[in-house]
Amino acid sequence: MNKHIVRRLAKLRTQLRRLKLDALVITNPTNVRYLSGFTGDSSAVLVTQSETVFVTDFRYVEQAGQECTGHRVVKRNGGTFKTLARQAKKLGAGRVGIEADVLSLDAAEQFRAALGKIEMVNTSGLVGRLREIKDRGEIAAIEACIRANEKCLEHIRPFLVPGIRELDISAEIEYFVRGLGFDGMAFPTIVAFGPRGSLPHAQPTKRRLRKGDPVLIDCGVTGDGYVSDLTRVFFHNKISERFERIYRIVLEAQRRAIRKIRPGVKAGVVGRAARGHITRAGFGPRFGHGLGHGLGMQVHEAPGVTAGSETALKRGMVFTVEPGIYIPGFGGVRIEDDVLVTPKGVKVLSDSPKDLKDIIIGG
Amino acid sequence: MNKHIVRRLAKLRTQLRRLKLDALVITNPTNVRYLSGFTGDSSAVLVTQSETVFVTDFRYVEQAGQECTGHRVVKRNGGTFKTLARQAKKLGAGRVGIEADVLSLDAAEQFRAALGKIEMVNTSGLVGRLREIKDRGEIAAIEACIRANEKCLEHIRPFLVPGIRELDISAEIEYFVRGLGFDGMAFPTIVAFGPRGSLPHAQPTKRRLRKGDPVLIDCGVTGDGYVSDLTRVFFHNKISERFERIYRIVLEAQRRAIRKIRPGVKAGVVGRAARGHITRAGFGPRFGHGLGHGLGMQVHEAPGVTAGSETALKRGMVFTVEPGIYIPGFGGVRIEDDVLVTPKGVKVLSDSPKDLKDIIIGG
Repeated sequence: MNKHIVRRLAKLRTQLRRLKLDALVITNPTNVRYLSGFTGDSSAVLVTQSETVFVTDFRYVEQAGQECTGHRVVKRNGGTFKTLARQAKKLGAGRVGIEADVLSLDAAEQFRAALGKIEMVNTSGLVGRLREIKDRGEIAAIEACIRANEKCLEHIRPFLVPGIRELDISAEIEYFVRGLGFDGMAFPTIVAFGPRGSLPHAQPTKRRLRKGDPVLIDCGVTGDGYVSDLTRVFFHNKISERFERIYRIVLEAQRRAIRKIRPGVKAGVVGRAARGHITRAGFGPRFGHGLGHGLGMQVHEAPGVTAGSETALKRGMVFTVEPGIYIPGFGGVRIEDDVLVTPKGVKVLSDSPKDLKDIIIGG
Repeated sequence: MNKHIVRRLAKLRTQLRRLKLDALVITNPTNVRYLSGFTGDSSAVLVTQSETVFVTDFRYVEQAGQECTGHRVVKRNGGTFKTLARQAKKLGAGRVGIEADVLSLDAAEQFRAALGKIEMVNTSGLVGRLREIKDRGEIAAIEACIRANEKCLEHIRPFLVPGIRELDISAEIEYFVRGLGFDGMAFPTIVAFGPRGSLPHAQPTKRRLRKGDPVLIDCGVTGDGYVSDLTRVFFHNKISERFERIYRIVLEAQRRAIRKIRPGVKAGVVGRAARGHITRAGFGPRFGHGLGHGLGMQVHEAPGVTAGSETALKRGMVFTVEPGIYIPGFGGVRIEDDVLVTPKGVKVLSDSPKDLKDIIIGG
């Protein structure tokens, strides 16, 4: 078992003792990977103080044997939850925690029936809270994705010529990422030309680039189980006065937010620094999403960074800082970087050019 | 509202009357798309006899307005479930169904609290059962993905030369699919060289192709909300006697299964036709997964086609037929095609070469 997984299981067992749980059943596939190293799906881990049991189906028994060293691999029989319940009984568990934030109501009811006299306890977020704080190996994996992500944004610039389609851009980015040896994109790449930039989650279409169109690209790379997430806006040839004003507001909002980040500060302080700036500039209602989200094994994980967030930042947290202004029919600007909370402040992990002079291309 | 969605909602409303439900809350993103046309995420649909309410967040209000014509779009306020509960109350609902197979236990409890006196009823699979039977537009969309999928398998053959890595193959397939104008892959492409073929869900690695290595490629295309799923095995240069024997057994098992397909036949009959053949050949324990799965908006949907399945096949069902034999340390063979149940029998929708002479390349 690798040392990171040993450490994670030790922390989790401390939580189990605190909550007087004899066992915890992990069914969130990302958490399963975090605690076992397993890269497949359809599997579960049962953690007690003395054992980690890995329950999977035929397809994955061989793979689990290779990947989950130190776990006892059990092939499921009669369904995952019946198998888990049998294992829990065998290990003498009296109280078993479940991940009620991902376990479906149907599955929870099946599990409750199979557990019989064993008490099922809703314990959501236990592993998610461990995952908030990244260890050195995780930070290195995220940084590797960010480096590849920056290369994408650099690589794609010469492709942004009139006539190219949004989906050509997303295809080229994906191909480039694969060529770098990464697993692929962390989420469907967003490419939006012209007024489509006002759709915060625009999927690439056959729309062709026209001179003067702004180009919004939001993409993430995934490799080794971790992800990155960056957004840049480019302007082809020229930038209109209105867009320039909006761009400067968003960039300044991001700068102000980042300046607030350090351990002990509430995430809401960071969120409000950006929101306050955008609101004072008159665009408050045009910034409709949160400022950022935790980033690690998943693109959206804890902590959420919004104006109302009460979470205190801690060393080792990694999240996005991505203010935006969206004007339907006109277009949108979002600037997104990934940051790490350091012992004394913040390290901006991503370093793609974003000064106004750097994002005007062609011409 | 497009005519397919009108028809689906009408069928769903019949089900609601049968179950004496005043409303149904749809939270499975695929079902949301099926009943609204919406292509984003994080949204829900509330269906009553007279209304369809579409609940989404800021990011998607504009997009929902464009995509979900005929639905009343409501921006969520205080969380999705509070908003849904308010709407249910406003519409005078007394009994509301939920998708308990996807709704998490936590979300279900939130919703129950917000509903107050309104009864929450577990109704899993209502929309899933509608989705089992594909309409003409859906079949056309699946067939378009299959055509692209076949092109992939044809396109990739010349790349299968000694020295190429598994991940080069998956990257090339993805890039090619994007170039065809499709949204991308329906699931992470499986590329397995040599003995790695025994891992039914092998993810591509840096392993390089050697002369004589079998190559297993399992990939799916997605476009317009639908998917395909095909698997072929290729042999580079020559095929060993043992592999040839296994290949012929799997191919014959598939042929026997397909011959059984027609409306009214239980899926188990089809599953057993393949399993029986493989078992008689002495490889029963090496075929550890089900024969096939429904295919449509998702890669795995109803009906499941296994030896024990009691589902009666119906006209309009689309599913995979994919027997396999996997021998750890040696390799594996899986042959997967997609079929449609027709009024009198079956139509094999996919048509990639799979005769022994067609899958030996190079040499």
